Amino acid sequence: MRNFDETTITDAVLERVKAAKNDRIRQVSEALVRHLHAFIREIEPTQAEWEAGIDFLTRTGQMCDDKRQEFILLSDTLGVSMLVDAMNHRTPAGATETTVLGPFYVQRAPEHPLGADISGPIEGTPLLVTGTVSTAECEPLAGAIIDVWHSDDDGYYDVQQLDEIGEFAMRARFRTDENGRFWFWSIRPAAYPIPHDGPVGKMLEAQGRHPWRPAHVHFMIAAPGHRTLVTHVFAADDQYLDTDVVFGVKDSLIREFACMPAGTAADGREMRRPYHHLNYDFGLKADTDARRAEERAA
Amino acid sequence: MRNFDETTITDAVLERVKAAKNDRIRQVSEALVRHLHAFIREIEPTQAEWEAGIDFLTRTGQMCDDKRQEFILLSDTLGVSMLVDAMNHRTPAGATETTVLGPFYVQRAPEHPLGADISGPIEGTPLLVTGTVSTAECEPLAGAIIDVWHSDDDGYYDVQQLDEIGEFAMRARFRTDENGRFWFWSIRPAAYPIPHDGPVGKMLEAQGRHPWRPAHVHFMIAAPGHRTLVTHVFAADDQYLDTDVVFGVKDSLIREFACMPAGTAADGREMRRPYHHLNYDFGLKADTDARRAEERAA
Repeated sequence: MRNFDETTITDAVLERVKAAKNDRIRQVSEALVRHLHAFIREIEPTQAEWEAGIDFLTRTGQMCDDKRQEFILLSDTLGVSMLVDAMNHRTPAGATETTVLGPFYVQRAPEHPLGADISGPIEGTPLLVTGTVSTAECEPLAGAIIDVWHSDDDGYYDVQQLDEIGEFAMRARFRTDENGRFWFWSIRPAAYPIPHDGPVGKMLEAQGRHPWRPAHVHFMIAAPGHRTLVTHVFAADDQYLDTDVVFGVKDSLIREFACMPAGTAADGREMRRPYHHLNYDFGLKADTDARRAEERAA
Repeated sequence: MRNFDETTITDAVLERVKAAKNDRIRQVSEALVRHLHAFIREIEPTQAEWEAGIDFLTRTGQMCDDKRQEFILLSDTLGVSMLVDAMNHRTPAGATETTVLGPFYVQRAPEHPLGADISGPIEGTPLLVTGTVSTAECEPLAGAIIDVWHSDDDGYYDVQQLDEIGEFAMRARFRTDENGRFWFWSIRPAAYPIPHDGPVGKMLEAQGRHPWRPAHVHFMIAAPGHRTLVTHVFAADDQYLDTDVVFGVKDSLIREFACMPAGTAADGREMRRPYHHLNYDFGLKADTDARRAEERAA
């Protein structure tokens, strides 16, 4: 087959990628060609627009380094990351809803005892975070591992200012106690714009969109026999809840970061100044595959 | 609107990009979101597959530099470049069909007199190229500008070996004579693989495809009042005509690179050894917009 025109080229490319040995690669390649060609066919780009598209993708790739992942920002801001997350987490009742991981997660954050203050050298309004981790059937999960990370009150994460502060802060790992409870101190995070000095920032501007995310605390929670939960809890009073640039907000993930007067806090700490208090009770979904494997092994 | 799940996220993103002030940016953004989400929804990528996709795009961008454009290779090998070309050149009868520009075109190639040998320091089987340039109604076009470029008999262009050869070769600009004719000498080009040591090469391998293009000579032909023609002429005996990796072959663009015995060639040159002869008569499409402008000015 040769002589391709706009009515035959798509079938020709589909025929060509059928040679893929791996079934999944063949399936993804065929779907990519169909949808990509349908997009091109709908917009009928001029040669100059095609060149602009090539240039946009090239600049997006070249903006990436070990501290910046512009293609993840593109996926996030086009709603692709949330769509992939949603399809991978069709959540049963009782389990906490998921949202995107984001670019600021760090593996092997330092472990702290329950009740620790993880704000390190960062100043801000004190925030007490409390909660529980349970099964979807409300049975407490003791010893669950909780990774937590969030921004400072200017919207910057520790990894964005590591040269200045020299250590991880507003980031830690905890384990729930025998009743599935956890609690720790930090500072209240702020809303922040995603990095927008690159191609994705230009795209957002051209689309008439702001680059902001509402204030939130990230959680990753793992327990044996359960699917690891990746989510955020958002501040109920934030102005960007309805327009989160990465479409990550869900009503069930919004809580009051309640203003508390000076005095004895819920964990017994004596506070000389007002602070905020966030409580969230998490539910983990059973990992049925892992359970079956455990049952077979037993 | 918040609380996006896999049934609502697409409408949410579409709603968001509606804020684009520029109509075309809004139209392209909306189409991109619809088709991209449809692709993701069809393949339901795992989190690991999504990461592999991000990594592929990132590596493709980072493979690009001033001598290599990996995203154009991706567009070419997925048939997108030919689709865009086809939609931009719905050719009327009498006009030569178009094909992709490719990555080896150079602006301002050296102009040579008709009959010149442009092979420079490159050795190979001599090739006489002759032909005419006419309107779609077969009227000869005198003074049309012809840019020509092609590979050597190992499949490499001059720009890929400029450090060694030190000058342009197998590349030139000519002007047709008063009867719309042109002729020049060079060497016969060979089939060649597109650069395949990057992400696109890995993709082709995974899709069970070879990276080869059939032997061809590139032409770009411009004349006042006509749309500039970008095309190739392919060698009729090439084994890759049916499987050109970038889908660029059209039957009307195939010609014999005819074997000729030693003796007097068509332009009067005495050849002591056998050579090849390629003839192609090109037809240019009228540029009605330009003509209307000329008529208004007259």
